[in-house]
Amino acid sequence: MARGKTTSVFTTRLERDTRGVRPECLVVEEPLEIRLDDHLIATTMRTPGNDYELAVGFCHTEGLLAGATVRTVRYCATGPASETAYNVVSVSTGGRAPAPSPRLQGTTSSCGVCGTASIDALLERLMPVPGPPVPVSLPALSRAATEVRVRQELFRSTGSIHAAGAFDPSTGDVSLVREDIGRHNAVDKAVGRMLLDGQLPAAGRGLFVSGRASFEMVQKAWAGGFGLVAAVSGPSALAVETARRAGITLVGFLRDGSANVYAPEPGVVSREG
Amino acid sequence: MARGKTTSVFTTRLERDTRGVRPECLVVEEPLEIRLDDHLIATTMRTPGNDYELAVGFCHTEGLLAGATVRTVRYCATGPASETAYNVVSVSTGGRAPAPSPRLQGTTSSCGVCGTASIDALLERLMPVPGPPVPVSLPALSRAATEVRVRQELFRSTGSIHAAGAFDPSTGDVSLVREDIGRHNAVDKAVGRMLLDGQLPAAGRGLFVSGRASFEMVQKAWAGGFGLVAAVSGPSALAVETARRAGITLVGFLRDGSANVYAPEPGVVSREG
Repeated sequence: MARGKTTSVFTTRLERDTRGVRPECLVVEEPLEIRLDDHLIATTMRTPGNDYELAVGFCHTEGLLAGATVRTVRYCATGPASETAYNVVSVSTGGRAPAPSPRLQGTTSSCGVCGTASIDALLERLMPVPGPPVPVSLPALSRAATEVRVRQELFRSTGSIHAAGAFDPSTGDVSLVREDIGRHNAVDKAVGRMLLDGQLPAAGRGLFVSGRASFEMVQKAWAGGFGLVAAVSGPSALAVETARRAGITLVGFLRDGSANVYAPEPGVVSREG
Repeated sequence: MARGKTTSVFTTRLERDTRGVRPECLVVEEPLEIRLDDHLIATTMRTPGNDYELAVGFCHTEGLLAGATVRTVRYCATGPASETAYNVVSVSTGGRAPAPSPRLQGTTSSCGVCGTASIDALLERLMPVPGPPVPVSLPALSRAATEVRVRQELFRSTGSIHAAGAFDPSTGDVSLVREDIGRHNAVDKAVGRMLLDGQLPAAGRGLFVSGRASFEMVQKAWAGGFGLVAAVSGPSALAVETARRAGITLVGFLRDGSANVYAPEPGVVSREG
C-alpha cells in the first residue's frame, strides 16, 4: 500500500466534449489499529499522519481513559520494520485506564458508545459543559470556516477530505486544523493534540467540522469540553437533542455567510446573544 | 427519542443583517442493533426506515452470510412494545451462516473487514467481478446522478443526508434509491433490497453514492457484484486500488457535467470506451 498522506494515479478526465488522461492526487486511506494498555480497542480507516493524536483522541472521546493520564504512545513495530508497522499504535496509561468491556474490543471508531440503552443512559447522565452557553457571532464563525479551509493542505491537493478545527468563537481565530478521510478521525486528531498539549477541557472554545453534525460529533465535542460545535452541513435530530442537554451551542449549515443555531433553543439564544 | 425519518425543531437563522426563529426539518438518527442468528454483529447509527434491508444488506456486504439464504428478518420486541423495540433487527439463516468471529461481535458497520492484515489478504484473494469492465457514458452517469437527487425525499426536506442508488450505466435509468445519515447504511439498504428481491449479483449495474468513494464503498459494491461505482466526491487511494483489482469501473467527482474515471486504468478505458 502507498505510504504518505496522498498519492498520485493516472485517471481519465471526462468532460462534455473531451476526454484526456491526467494524474490525479488521491487521499491515502489505511487501517489503524488502536490499542490501549495492550487491549485492541478499535480499527479505523484513516489517512496516515498524526496517528498518535488520533489514538489518544479516540481513547479520550470514547471515554476509555476515564481520567487516566497517557504515559506513552508508540507504534507497534513487531519484528523488523515492516510495511504495516505504522498501522498499529499503542496508548499506555500503565494500566490505570479501566479494561475495555469485551463488547467494545474490536469496534471501529464510528460509534463507540452507541446502542439504544447506552444512548438513553448517556443522555440521562450527561453532565453539561460548564459555563453559560457560548454566544454565537456569525462573522467570527464565518471567519473560522474560511481559515480552516485555507489551512487544509490535503483538501487543496485532493479536493476530497474532511477537516476538524479548534477556534475562538468570539474572534474566529483558528488554533488547530486536522484532516482525515473520516470526519470522526479528524475530530479525534484535533482533540488528541489538545489533550497531549494539556488544553482540555476546551471550555468556551469552538470545534469546527467540515461535514454534518451527527450524534457522534457532538458526543466527541462534549468529551473534549468544547462549548460550541459548528458544522458546514446539517445536524441530526439526536445531535441537536444531545447538544441541548449538554449545554453545547450547536451551529449548522455554516456556509455562504449564514448559519442556523440549533442549540440552545431559540429563546435561550436571544437571552444570551 | 423521536420516531420517523425526520423531525422538526425551532432554530435561529442567522444571516448577515437578520436573525429569525423558524422551524427546521432534521434527519432522525438512532442506533440499530443488527443480530445474525442471535449473535449481535453490529450497532450502527442510522436513519430509521428500511431497517430490514439495512440489516440484510450489512450481513451480505460484510460477507457474514457466506452464501446462506436469509429465512426471516424481524424486529426484536422484547416484552411489551417499547419505544426502542424497533431499534433491534434480527436476521436468521436458521444457523446456516457461519458464527461470526468473536472479534467482529459488537463492531459497527463502518469497517467490518479492516485491519492491515485482513485488507492485504482481501486484496490478495479478491475475485474480480465477472465480465469486461463496464464502459463509461458520461451522459448516462450525469442523468443517473440527477435522477437520484430528484428522488431523494429526505434530502429535499432536510438538505443533509446521504444517498445510494442502483442504475443502468448505459442509460442512467435509476431503479432504486435509499437514503441514510450514514453513507455505508444507504449502500447497505440498497444492496439489502436487491438481495431480498433476488437481484444480486448486480452484474453490469452501477452503484451511485452521494459522497466520497472510500475503501468500504468499493468493498460493499464488490460484495453486491456491481460492475461500476460512481461517487459525487473523490475516491481514496485504497478505493482505487481495490476497484482496479476487482475489475470494477470507478468514477469520482461526478458533478457539473464532468467526471474522473479511476478504474480501470486509463489505457484499459480507452480500449473499452
